[in-house]
Formats: sequence, C-alpha cells, structure tokens
Amino acid sequence: FRSYLASVSGFIREWRSKYDMRRVIHSIKVGIALVLVSLFYLVNPLYNQVGENAMWAIMTVVVIFEFYAGATLGKGINRGIGTILGGGLGCMAAVLAQQIGGVGNSVLVGFSVFVFGAAATYSRLIPSIKRRYDYGAMIFILTFNLVVVSGLRAGQVMDIARDRLATIGIGFAICIFTSLLVFPNWASDELHVSVASKFEDVGSSIEGCMEGYFMSGNEKEKQGSNNCKNCKAVLHSKSKDEMLANFARWEPWHGKFGFSYPWNKYLQIGENLRELAVTVISLRSCLESPRQPTKNLREPMTEPCSSVMSMLAWALRELRESIMKMRRFQVGEEVLSKLKAVRVELTLLTPQTMLAPLQKDEELAVASFL
Amino acid sequence: FRSYLASVSGFIREWRSKYDMRRVIHSIKVGIALVLVSLFYLVNPLYNQVGENAMWAIMTVVVIFEFYAGATLGKGINRGIGTILGGGLGCMAAVLAQQIGGVGNSVLVGFSVFVFGAAATYSRLIPSIKRRYDYGAMIFILTFNLVVVSGLRAGQVMDIARDRLATIGIGFAICIFTSLLVFPNWASDELHVSVASKFEDVGSSIEGCMEGYFMSGNEKEKQGSNNCKNCKAVLHSKSKDEMLANFARWEPWHGKFGFSYPWNKYLQIGENLRELAVTVISLRSCLESPRQPTKNLREPMTEPCSSVMSMLAWALRELRESIMKMRRFQVGEEVLSKLKAVRVELTLLTPQTMLAPLQKDEELAVASFL
Repeated sequence: FRSYLASVSGFIREWRSKYDMRRVIHSIKVGIALVLVSLFYLVNPLYNQVGENAMWAIMTVVVIFEFYAGATLGKGINRGIGTILGGGLGCMAAVLAQQIGGVGNSVLVGFSVFVFGAAATYSRLIPSIKRRYDYGAMIFILTFNLVVVSGLRAGQVMDIARDRLATIGIGFAICIFTSLLVFPNWASDELHVSVASKFEDVGSSIEGCMEGYFMSGNEKEKQGSNNCKNCKAVLHSKSKDEMLANFARWEPWHGKFGFSYPWNKYLQIGENLRELAVTVISLRSCLESPRQPTKNLREPMTEPCSSVMSMLAWALRELRESIMKMRRFQVGEEVLSKLKAVRVELTLLTPQTMLAPLQKDEELAVASFL
Repeated sequence: FRSYLASVSGFIREWRSKYDMRRVIHSIKVGIALVLVSLFYLVNPLYNQVGENAMWAIMTVVVIFEFYAGATLGKGINRGIGTILGGGLGCMAAVLAQQIGGVGNSVLVGFSVFVFGAAATYSRLIPSIKRRYDYGAMIFILTFNLVVVSGLRAGQVMDIARDRLATIGIGFAICIFTSLLVFPNWASDELHVSVASKFEDVGSSIEGCMEGYFMSGNEKEKQGSNNCKNCKAVLHSKSKDEMLANFARWEPWHGKFGFSYPWNKYLQIGENLRELAVTVISLRSCLESPRQPTKNLREPMTEPCSSVMSMLAWALRELRESIMKMRRFQVGEEVLSKLKAVRVELTLLTPQTMLAPLQKDEELAVASFL
C-alpha cells in the first residue's frame, strides 16, 4: 500500500511541475461552484423554493466564472445590470403591447425587438463600450427579447422576471464566493508581476546581445538567438497587458493595491519598455551586420561597452526590484550620471562606430522611466 | 414633402460618413435575425410546434451572432458540438444515476458534475483549445450540467435534450442565413486587405522618415511624428491578425479564397512586416539623434539616399498591389539588383555614416518576402 501511495505522490509531483498549478486550482474551484449551484436541484427544500428557475443559476455560474477574479466580477456585474435593464424595458414593452391587444400587439413586440436589438448591437461595436460592457449589452438583448416575447404567452411577466433575476443573483453570489474568497487569481497581481519581469527580460537581452558581440565565432553559434525571444515577447505583450489592466479595474481593494490604483501607469511603463525592446532588437541586428569592425578593432571597445551594458542591465533590474517591492527608485540620479559619463568616454574612444547613437537611445528610454 | 425628404437624405449621408457603414449593416442584420427567431413566439402554429423551447433558439441567435461571418460560424459549430456531446454524456449519466436510485443518485450526479466541470474547465485553459474551442467547452459544461440535474426531476431527459437541440439548430440556421447570405462580413477579406495595407503603411513611413531627415528645421516641426504612428500600428497588429486568421479558418469557400487557403502565410508576412517596422522605427530614432552629421555633410548623401528610399517604398507598394490582386510579384529580381547597386554606391560614398548597415537590414527584410 505504501509503494502505491509513493507512486501516486510521485505522479502528482511530476504532474504538478508539468502543469501550471493555478489552472488546476481554477478548475477545481469551477467544479465546486457547479456542485454548489446544482444543490438547488439536488436538495428538495431548495428546489421547492426556486423550481425550474434554478437553470438560470447554473447558467450564470458556467458563463461568468472566469480565470481572473476581476473578469468574473466584471462579467457578473455586467450580467446583473444587463438583466435588470433588459428585464425592466422588456416588462414595460410587454405591458404596453398587452394594452394595445390584437395584431398590433405582435407588431409592436416585433418592432421593439428589432429596434432594441439593433441599437444594442451597434453599441457593442463601439470600442470603448466593447472593452468593458460588451457582455452586459449582450445580456440586455437576450433578457429584453425573452421577457418581451414571453409576455405574449405567460400572463405574469413580472413574476418570471423577478424569479429569474433572483436565481441569477444566487449564481452570481456562488461565483463571487468561490472566485474571490478561495485562492483568488487576481489579474492585478499578474499585471504587476508581468510588468516588473519585463524589465528583467529586456535587461538580460541587452547583456546577451553584448556578450554575443564580443564572443568568438564558435561560441556565438551555440548561443543562438534566445535573447531576442524575450525581447519579442515584450514587444507583443500590449494586448495581454491591456486585458489584464481591464480586469484589474474591476477588482476590489485587496493586498497592496488600494482603491483607484493607477493601472494606466502600468500600461505606460509597458509602452516605454516596448520602445526599449525595439531599440534592443535593432541594435542586435546592427551588430550582426557584416559591416561591423573586425575582431582587432573590437578589442579596445570591449571594456567600456560591457560596463555600460552591465550598468544598463543592473539599472533595469533595480527598477524591477523597486516596482516589485513598490518603493521609490532610490539610485536614479546616480545611475543617470554614471551612464552619461560612460557615454562620453565611449564617444571619445570610438567615433567611427555606430554603437554610440544607439546606446544614447537606450539611455533616453531609461531616462524616460525615471 | 420634398424638402423633408432632402433633409432626411442629407442627414443619412452625413451620418453615413460619420459611422462605419458595416457596423450599421451588422446591427440591422442582428435585428432581423432576432425578429425572425421571435416569430416562434409570435406566430401560433410555430409556437405550438416548439413551445417554451423557442427560448433556446432566441438565446442561440443572441449569443452566436458575431461581427465576422467566420466567428458566427465557428461559434455556431462549437455550440452544436458542445450541446451534442454535453447532452449525450449528460443523458448517459442521468440514466445511470436513475438506475442506482436513492441517495446514491444525488451523489453520483454531484460527483459527475464536479468531474466533468473541472476537466472541461481545465481544457479551456490550454492555449490551443482556448483559441478555437473555448466556447464549445463552455457549452459542453452548461448542457451536461443542465441535462444531468434535470434528469433528477423531469422523467423524459431524452425528450428535453432532443427538443433543445432542435431549437438550437433553428437558431443556428437563422444566424447562418442572415450572417453568411446577406451582406456577409468576411474576416478573410479583412485580413487580406489589412495585410496588404501594412505594406503601404511601412512604405510611406520610410519615405516620411527620409523626407524629414533632409528637410530644414522649420519644416520638420510642422510634420511631427505622424509617420511613426503607422509603423507602430503595424507593430501592434499581431493579436488582431491572429484573431482574423482564426475566424477566416472557419469561413467556407467564397470569392477568391479556396478551401484550405494558406492563412498561416498571412501571419508570416505580418511577422516579417513587424520586423521591418522595428527597423524603420529605430532608423528614425537614429536619424533624430544629435550625433548625426551637419547639414553640409548631408548634402552629398541626399540623392542616393532618397533614391534608395523611394525605391524601397515603390517595391513595398508593388508588393501590396500584387497581394491585393493575388498575382505573382513580377519585378522582384529587378528590384533586388537595383537595391544592391544603390547600396554599393552608398557604401562608397559614406563609409562614416551608420545609414548603410540599417538599410542593409531593410533590404534583407524585403528580400525575405520575395
């Protein structure tokens, strides 16, 4: 039996290292939320309260439970507001149509379905609304449509709308409970760490670039272009950053982030880092061009170049640390003056190479962070 | 009455220029689809056929009708497969649970909800599945859950599942009809045009860059950094391109695109163009650095530089044309040899500037397209 346990734990450890633990936790959380919401069917007293409307609670849990807590909260709030607005307008339209009666009834219902559906769909295509309220607009269309056409058949539109809203509320509460209170996946944490780690990526790319330049031919081939990968990942991180910032705005106060935390600053820092990554990538392709000086000419430049590069990388790492720990960047002035001194030295030494202007760029980029 | 008509048409014209016509058409299409699907409630003979299940048809239309035809088709197919799989497995689990009976019944249902829910949620987090089958997995969870818990209450699980599937099919058919047959918005067309227009963007950026360099100070300030905007837009187009290619893969044969059209090539071309954009942006920042030669020194370079730049821009425009018209790029050899000749000329002329290696890069990039 012991050997069985050992093999199981070994399997789990291996599996744990292979897959991201956060995904497994998220999956288990969703499973628990689904079981909780299914209790409305499974337990008789609960079923007698809500009846068939328990379906809406299940639907709510399945649809709004997202990986990040902020995304779940945002979708839930959108769904709630969309349901209330759509239900309210739908009830009004249904009552109005009932008072007209006859064929006019159906015509009015069809007309209102068309007008509200088309208007809400158009609003979903406007970028600023799409980014934050897309799901709410969809739910508005759905609820409005269901309520207004059900009004034709079932007498008690109000009752239907109220019961559904209540069950959606139950589903939402279950989601919030499992998503925010049990091992929450904060988008804000992820954004914070990913922005900070970009400094590291760019810094190590700069170092790798320089090492590759002063290496002999053999060593170079071994290394390959691993360093550029990091830089390219930074370059294409814009849409992910924006998504995370969008979710982070929905997230309530928690941990080190207060209310109205300036998430836009993260996007700005990301933008600057992307510009720096552009510079590093093009510096790399410059250094790889066949018009570079030969090995002998490179010798005298080795020391100042490596020193400026390692200083840049060190400065980026310090910036990363200070962002991670959320403290002021202390050594800013010092770094800047050192970088300026090295640049002057470099300019005197190698007026004929084109390294200097590019490094200047990087400095400017670094300076723009400070 | 005539003046009224004139003012209406004027209003429409103004409004048309202001908003993207495609969005308006899409909104109207959604409105029409909603009215069509509402007919199942509005028209008595139809309602007698489907009953309350018409709700599922409405839900299907609201949820799967997307802006691009490919997205609608993809979501619809995902929904269909998810419903069939979830419904089938749910029926099996429900029948199994009924045979056990008693408390074991509820326990088995709860257990299966947890296991299938968690497993499907985990699969949704795997990038390759997330990209194409995210929605299908969600619908699988939803349908499985609804069917398996309904099985506890309603006797005829099979009937429920069959009716719902039928109404979802009706909703899907209405969506496909309005989305694909009436003014379709093909994602494939959009991808084709957007990739081709990137050549134009990069080409005009190269020209603008060069013009700015040889201009006097006054003119420069007027121009600003408009050209770089295009380049940056190209740089950050990766996620949009991938989204469009993903939708385009779902789209059936239409227009000039055959079956198994190589959408990956578009992504590769986009990748190369983004690299070229990196080069242009860094060339620009090099040219703006204070270490550039003074105006007098620039004079002799003006002519060869402008000629190489305009040739590059011309080549990019030719490439754009040939992609737009889907014909072979005829003048490739010619352009390449000319570019090489100009580069040699430029190298002889200005060994001390750092323009040449950068232009070399661009050539390499251009060459990689051919």
